[in-house]
Amino acid sequence: MRDVRSIEHIHKFHHNPNYLSSVEINLPAQNVTNDLKRLISQSDFVLLNVPAAFLKDALQGITAADLAGKKVISAIKGIVPDENQIIGEFLNQHYGIPFDHFLVISGPCHAEEVALEKLSYLTIASRDTELAAGFAGMFSTRYIKTIISDDIYGTEYGAVLKNIYAIAGGICHGVGYGDNFQAVLISNAIRELERFVAAVHPIDRDIKESAYLGDLMVTAYSQFSRNRTFGNMIGKGYTVTSAQLEMNMIAEGYYAVNCLHQVNKQYNVNMPICDAVYAILYEKRPPALEMKHLAEQLS
Amino acid sequence: MRDVRSIEHIHKFHHNPNYLSSVEINLPAQNVTNDLKRLISQSDFVLLNVPAAFLKDALQGITAADLAGKKVISAIKGIVPDENQIIGEFLNQHYGIPFDHFLVISGPCHAEEVALEKLSYLTIASRDTELAAGFAGMFSTRYIKTIISDDIYGTEYGAVLKNIYAIAGGICHGVGYGDNFQAVLISNAIRELERFVAAVHPIDRDIKESAYLGDLMVTAYSQFSRNRTFGNMIGKGYTVTSAQLEMNMIAEGYYAVNCLHQVNKQYNVNMPICDAVYAILYEKRPPALEMKHLAEQLS
Repeated sequence: MRDVRSIEHIHKFHHNPNYLSSVEINLPAQNVTNDLKRLISQSDFVLLNVPAAFLKDALQGITAADLAGKKVISAIKGIVPDENQIIGEFLNQHYGIPFDHFLVISGPCHAEEVALEKLSYLTIASRDTELAAGFAGMFSTRYIKTIISDDIYGTEYGAVLKNIYAIAGGICHGVGYGDNFQAVLISNAIRELERFVAAVHPIDRDIKESAYLGDLMVTAYSQFSRNRTFGNMIGKGYTVTSAQLEMNMIAEGYYAVNCLHQVNKQYNVNMPICDAVYAILYEKRPPALEMKHLAEQLS
Repeated sequence: MRDVRSIEHIHKFHHNPNYLSSVEINLPAQNVTNDLKRLISQSDFVLLNVPAAFLKDALQGITAADLAGKKVISAIKGIVPDENQIIGEFLNQHYGIPFDHFLVISGPCHAEEVALEKLSYLTIASRDTELAAGFAGMFSTRYIKTIISDDIYGTEYGAVLKNIYAIAGGICHGVGYGDNFQAVLISNAIRELERFVAAVHPIDRDIKESAYLGDLMVTAYSQFSRNRTFGNMIGKGYTVTSAQLEMNMIAEGYYAVNCLHQVNKQYNVNMPICDAVYAILYEKRPPALEMKHLAEQLS
């Protein structure tokens, strides 16, 4: 952790002062630290979990040598800004992490429900599915089941795009569309996602699996979704800045849609929903008008 | 309408006393009647909209001759009991309605939102897609968009099975599963639906279209869903009878899962979710145990 006061709080009270504060944290004191370099040097597995927008900052001072031989797992759902790369690509190019030492951990999984010990399914993806299976074993518990996948690109992009679609759903709700329209929006969203990942990484995948469709639904429909809440405020007329201030949390889809807009210049996939969210958030197009325009393109 | 007092109420007050009572009904007096035979004789299009369980009763006294040459549209989402046929099959076999005079109208579409003039998309399916397009034109309004399909079987069975899956979702909620699990359940449900309709009527269809996936999501996730509410009560320990008395409405999925159980004896499709709902509702298996068993089979 970066914040020294939070570290001291956890050492002293065994609870995180800021997030899911009711959960008891029982770790050896040296494991909760801001000395990332030392922590990594003592670890076999490094699980990264910061918003993608802050990954570069978080890794400052860490070199390829520090990560050499480590297995790196990303629980990040986002694209690295400026680089416009998913986490696997970024770590591969900038830190030399080979793809068969890299894993992705994905939902459908709201942390809030895991804290409540509600049965949840995690998908663990890696080019090396034996590595994924071994890692999955460490994560399985009474209330966590794991699914193995070899689809890093689909799993990462699925986790990124679902946040954008949840913002879209929130905006539509905010401007007054109902559940009937929401269902049409999300059934179009999964087809848009399928088109995009097929263009980026064309392998045989079933987009209706839990890691893709399930993850999209839990985010688009759940009360816990930050991105949906953010979109709803935008739909109701909040500016981006005031919505972010009000929420006191990052809606990752806000950054993701900008990155995706850049990435898609190279693939030119037909993505009317992402385009609409981009136009509203970055070109200040009026939400109601833009969603009316989007509705004409859905089926 | 069957109930004479309701007919008198509509003639006098232009509102239905029982359902969506706020909606004004401006029809010529002779169009609201219990004389079905006369009404059909004066009509080109006959739109049927009673629970499937009561369709035979509703059509008593109507003969194949009465319906000869008529276009018949089904807005029914169900299987005819005892016959175990979808509406198109039933009307074809028992009333000689040719399949190219038959249409299906489907969602994702809660009536409550249509009454509120919320933008909704209807799918109109017929073997004769020109007929479907013509009929769609009559239904399109400022807040109703239409999608044409040639898939009667998929559209009918999709509308039937979504009610069963909504009951499953309700039961899971009732016994304490959260949104994370719900997303896994529904992403498995759409794959189960795809397997089943592929076995019954194998054509090239995209099960992620609004009429299938959208309809499933709006039913499984919406506050308006009777089937989800019914399932939730079962999950919380109500008996079937007390849940039905309490709701004062029919949860069509209750009848549908029994019919589907019979139909699937002929196809033997792997349908663990439908099986679980059947076991709970008809074999009085304990909901919590049965859902735990189901969870082991999902991915």
